[in-house]
Amino acid sequence: LPHMAKLKADLEVKIEHLLTRNVEQVTVKNHLEAALRSGKKLRVKLGIDPTGDKIHIGRAVALWKLKEFQDLGHKIILIIGDFTAQIGDASDKLAKRPMLEKEQIKKNLKTYLPQIGKILNLKKTEVRYNSEWLGKLRFQDVLGLADLFTAQQMIERRNFSERWEKHEEISLREFLYPLMQGYDSVAIKADVELGGTDQLFNLMAGRKIQERFKQKPQDIMLTGMLSGTDGRKMSTSWGNVINIVDAPDEQFGKAMAIHDSEIVNYFRTATDLDDFSISKYELDLKNGKNPKDVKLALANALVTRYHGEKAADKAQAKWDSLFSKKEISTSDIPELKVSKGITAQDVVVKSGVTQSKGEAWRLVSQGGLRVNDQIVPDPKEKLDLAKGDVVKVGKKRFFRIG
Amino acid sequence: LPHMAKLKADLEVKIEHLLTRNVEQVTVKNHLEAALRSGKKLRVKLGIDPTGDKIHIGRAVALWKLKEFQDLGHKIILIIGDFTAQIGDASDKLAKRPMLEKEQIKKNLKTYLPQIGKILNLKKTEVRYNSEWLGKLRFQDVLGLADLFTAQQMIERRNFSERWEKHEEISLREFLYPLMQGYDSVAIKADVELGGTDQLFNLMAGRKIQERFKQKPQDIMLTGMLSGTDGRKMSTSWGNVINIVDAPDEQFGKAMAIHDSEIVNYFRTATDLDDFSISKYELDLKNGKNPKDVKLALANALVTRYHGEKAADKAQAKWDSLFSKKEISTSDIPELKVSKGITAQDVVVKSGVTQSKGEAWRLVSQGGLRVNDQIVPDPKEKLDLAKGDVVKVGKKRFFRIG
Repeated sequence: LPHMAKLKADLEVKIEHLLTRNVEQVTVKNHLEAALRSGKKLRVKLGIDPTGDKIHIGRAVALWKLKEFQDLGHKIILIIGDFTAQIGDASDKLAKRPMLEKEQIKKNLKTYLPQIGKILNLKKTEVRYNSEWLGKLRFQDVLGLADLFTAQQMIERRNFSERWEKHEEISLREFLYPLMQGYDSVAIKADVELGGTDQLFNLMAGRKIQERFKQKPQDIMLTGMLSGTDGRKMSTSWGNVINIVDAPDEQFGKAMAIHDSEIVNYFRTATDLDDFSISKYELDLKNGKNPKDVKLALANALVTRYHGEKAADKAQAKWDSLFSKKEISTSDIPELKVSKGITAQDVVVKSGVTQSKGEAWRLVSQGGLRVNDQIVPDPKEKLDLAKGDVVKVGKKRFFRIG
Repeated sequence: LPHMAKLKADLEVKIEHLLTRNVEQVTVKNHLEAALRSGKKLRVKLGIDPTGDKIHIGRAVALWKLKEFQDLGHKIILIIGDFTAQIGDASDKLAKRPMLEKEQIKKNLKTYLPQIGKILNLKKTEVRYNSEWLGKLRFQDVLGLADLFTAQQMIERRNFSERWEKHEEISLREFLYPLMQGYDSVAIKADVELGGTDQLFNLMAGRKIQERFKQKPQDIMLTGMLSGTDGRKMSTSWGNVINIVDAPDEQFGKAMAIHDSEIVNYFRTATDLDDFSISKYELDLKNGKNPKDVKLALANALVTRYHGEKAADKAQAKWDSLFSKKEISTSDIPELKVSKGITAQDVVVKSGVTQSKGEAWRLVSQGGLRVNDQIVPDPKEKLDLAKGDVVKVGKKRFFRIG
């Protein structure tokens, strides 16, 4: 009996964590809480884009939340939006079915699913393609779905209303997207759907459409958003992302470069550190502790999440050896993009420290170029620089390979 | 050769008439004009609702215009919107196919097509149901069509923008209607489509969608609109219509009741009178001629169009016998709606001349009630009143059965 009580208390803690950590909103919270306690195996849905991109830690927030559901014995259903992706820019695809793209999508998934597998147990996960049901819908079905929404509701949606006010074109096709995502919930009989806060409308659409089909409306859980390393929205196209498959050194370096204002949110959203420890760091910062020192703990926790403690400690040690005794603010290290096989001389020119090729030659010859603290003395040497490598030019200029 | 020249001149007159009389707009006019002269057999489209309603003379405007095309040897294609009608209020029809309604539509057409046959030669007319092609479209096709339009274009449409400003709900389904109508043009390879001025957007959508499918965009012809007998929009639900199957007397009486301001437009839009004669009547009115007298010519011409000259003259003679010597303005005759088999006494009460049943009894008994100028002396007599019958109560009060 005491054993049972402990198990029950454990469950309560896990449910509490599931419902609160990195969670912006749950609809309907009481309902989901009761369902989680009921012992019922819930069907938990997440829609993902079948791109070949690397998954960044912002998009991983929902995956970690799914893992919590999975660890509690619930069924995870990943919806691969192959139908949506096939349509994509539909402007030149009407009538001819873009079957070729289907191959591309499958190819993309080969690089994509293994990344998800770093977080979820894929063997226990149901992976479904939404072309399975959306491809069968006919015009009359679309009309029935469309009739559940008004034009006004669509335009009041934040991302549409902003574009509306800026007089930017909104394709009528875009209005049909929430219908697809919503119908996915019907097809797989979702009990819960996860998404970022920008997905509120689509997830609510799912509830509406499920009710239309006499299903109980899914509960929806909106996970917190993570800003990019530069403070803007995290987006692969802006190059301000940390990817879950980035090497430990690279993750560490990128984490050290985030804006100070983002530290606490990164702790909560991108690490497994407990709330109590995070609060302590938050207090440290308020009491004037050097953010650089707190960031070391953050970077360590982040790398631990994806590569384990050992790798994290190793990355930290390397970082320390490079920077700890230098009077530089690590968050100010600018990124440097170079092509593969660039010469040592050209790296110096590319860095902008000098624009003269002759001067760059002299600087390298005199031992003024270091890569990861190792001198590169030959200006003609072809370098194989990797992301996260630290380049030092002259006495004071540091760059991080991006 | 002179014979040929005459034929050619005839054709020119007919083309000129086709392109101008009751025509508000033609896009692209030069193109259509050249096509009409080319000798090519054009495919001319009109979409009609498969309701069981009587066709009123306002909706007939486009049918008369089609007849002009047909008389010149072009192919008329009537699109029966059975797909649209099946969807109708889609709110409770998703997933279950409303096959029963298809039967209802066919039933409706049995009363509808014969009415159209009073104007067009149905043997030479192609009648198509748009479920034939719209029923086959899939979600991906709809997305492709939707992508040709922006949300802004939809809302700028007059009938939507008015509702938008009044904060009236617009179902997203309604945004998809122009896509259907437009795709109809692709399916039947329309060269020309006709519609009322309120159809401009839908007809332009047809052009856009045809271009998407590598077809030459149809020319569009917008026909003039006819106001109802009360000056508002002509609409069956407002009871201000003249139907093409109404009996001569009824048509005549309704025409006599139209607002004076509508006389000239009725001449142009609802009769076959030539433009020269119409101009003469217009001048008469400007010079102060009693509108009642001009309306007699209008009513005669209107009845002639649908029932022939003889019937028109007969209706006019009856009208004269009833009203010509009376000092009443025919346009002021109020309408009276009564149920079948109403007693003479109750007609008087219903007319509002008196609310006392006893007084109504006395009035009828003393010969104070006439139907079509015939005294009805028995208060208990059950009357079988028809639309257009004229009821006189007491010495001065006239009513028209509606």
